[in-house]
Amino acid sequence: MKIAIQGERGSFSHEAASKMVEHCKVVPCRRSSEVFDLLEKDEVPAAIIPIENTLAGSVAEHYDLLLKHDFFIHQEFRLRIVHNLIASHKVTLEKVKKIFSHPIALEQCRKFLNKLPDVEIIPYYDTAGSVRHVVEEELLDSAAIASELAAEEYKGQVLERGIEDNKNNFTRFFLLKKSCRIEKNANKTSLVFALKNVPGVLYKALSIFAMDEINLSKIESRPVPGKPWEYIFYIDVMQGNTKTLKKALKNLKKTSSFVKLLGIYPAAK
Amino acid sequence: MKIAIQGERGSFSHEAASKMVEHCKVVPCRRSSEVFDLLEKDEVPAAIIPIENTLAGSVAEHYDLLLKHDFFIHQEFRLRIVHNLIASHKVTLEKVKKIFSHPIALEQCRKFLNKLPDVEIIPYYDTAGSVRHVVEEELLDSAAIASELAAEEYKGQVLERGIEDNKNNFTRFFLLKKSCRIEKNANKTSLVFALKNVPGVLYKALSIFAMDEINLSKIESRPVPGKPWEYIFYIDVMQGNTKTLKKALKNLKKTSSFVKLLGIYPAAK
Repeated sequence: MKIAIQGERGSFSHEAASKMVEHCKVVPCRRSSEVFDLLEKDEVPAAIIPIENTLAGSVAEHYDLLLKHDFFIHQEFRLRIVHNLIASHKVTLEKVKKIFSHPIALEQCRKFLNKLPDVEIIPYYDTAGSVRHVVEEELLDSAAIASELAAEEYKGQVLERGIEDNKNNFTRFFLLKKSCRIEKNANKTSLVFALKNVPGVLYKALSIFAMDEINLSKIESRPVPGKPWEYIFYIDVMQGNTKTLKKALKNLKKTSSFVKLLGIYPAAK
Repeated sequence: MKIAIQGERGSFSHEAASKMVEHCKVVPCRRSSEVFDLLEKDEVPAAIIPIENTLAGSVAEHYDLLLKHDFFIHQEFRLRIVHNLIASHKVTLEKVKKIFSHPIALEQCRKFLNKLPDVEIIPYYDTAGSVRHVVEEELLDSAAIASELAAEEYKGQVLERGIEDNKNNFTRFFLLKKSCRIEKNANKTSLVFALKNVPGVLYKALSIFAMDEINLSKIESRPVPGKPWEYIFYIDVMQGNTKTLKKALKNLKKTSSFVKLLGIYPAAK
């Protein structure tokens, strides 16, 4: 199955795709909007996007794109983010004078990098792309930080494994399709709603779920474009396609100016 | 008064600072963490930071820095973001073949840029910095997108005013100091809290405010580093240093694993 991802081959999205879907063939896109456009135009049957990282937080752009397009979340996956120092085959750690990577990856390996005070740290647009750069250009004084898959993909050498500061580093991914099929073991629901501009209205909306003991696992707010200081809310609840959920959705529509179901899917383990 | 800001002279933070504090002298910093460090070390008596934009959303890094440092919000301000096309004095619109600016500014002027299909769009690290670049280098085929203040600051010429797509483009700024003085007309409070990991706990926390008819104007969630899938919540409530607020804070402490007051200040008009 062809799957659109944002980032190069060997990126963390590629790693997630290869673990979520057997024999997948990734279609790398430079921008997230391209990933959504490919699925919109049926050029791919599915897309995989990161939605939040346990250290960096939510990917706001992807929440906005989920609202704009009518896709459905089929699957959720949690990838443990392991950063590695990767270089061309002739390079040893002692020779490294420059380290390239995406600013977030560099930030997440600060303790490791602080032990190398003479090394120049260079931000790059993409983790996997930084590996391709140092390997294909055969830079003998440089290394890059990325996934192990990036080392395989561009035939680089892993100089140091697991150099991330915090081992509680996970990224949550969604598999998106156009169809709305709900798996039998689906036990989690994502939705987005806008509230009427009345005091206490978020509390009332959340009470709908609390009263039925539907547990909320995440809430995210985003501004409403063109309506300053108004927000829409994205929530995840631990409930599948049950009568309780349907009743809650019906009640939510009463207090909301709009409600959109983003997916009902099996929760990641 | 010396005020630390992130970005160059002529940035929107500089514009906000000049409108918030009379006769201020801005201290430009390249990174946001430097702004907070200068205030921490008493090298400046105050700092001004953007906290959210009505189109792009919250500045997550600044929420994280507010949690890390013990500063107090003294003032809130809403700046209308007006983007302008700025160039060196010999340049006319017809001559422009390249436009530089920060990616968010470029994104917010997409309709204007789409009318210039032959122009190359070049992302730059900073809006004001892009003006300095085109003016100081005397680039005769280039322009930059930034505030009018940037044109004044670097002696550029405004080729086109108000080129932003959406006029409902505002950024909210905070004035931060170390002292905790509360203005007499303070009527808004910002705080951050972490909840115990129990179902329905966010609903219970919000009920504390709803019951006392304290209106919530904003809620923002951020991940707890090192505790995957746990969140802390930043809220703004429309209530100053009243008995009602003090009672609510006391009750919030019972359901929360931690509560921190970020500021009590007069709401922006």
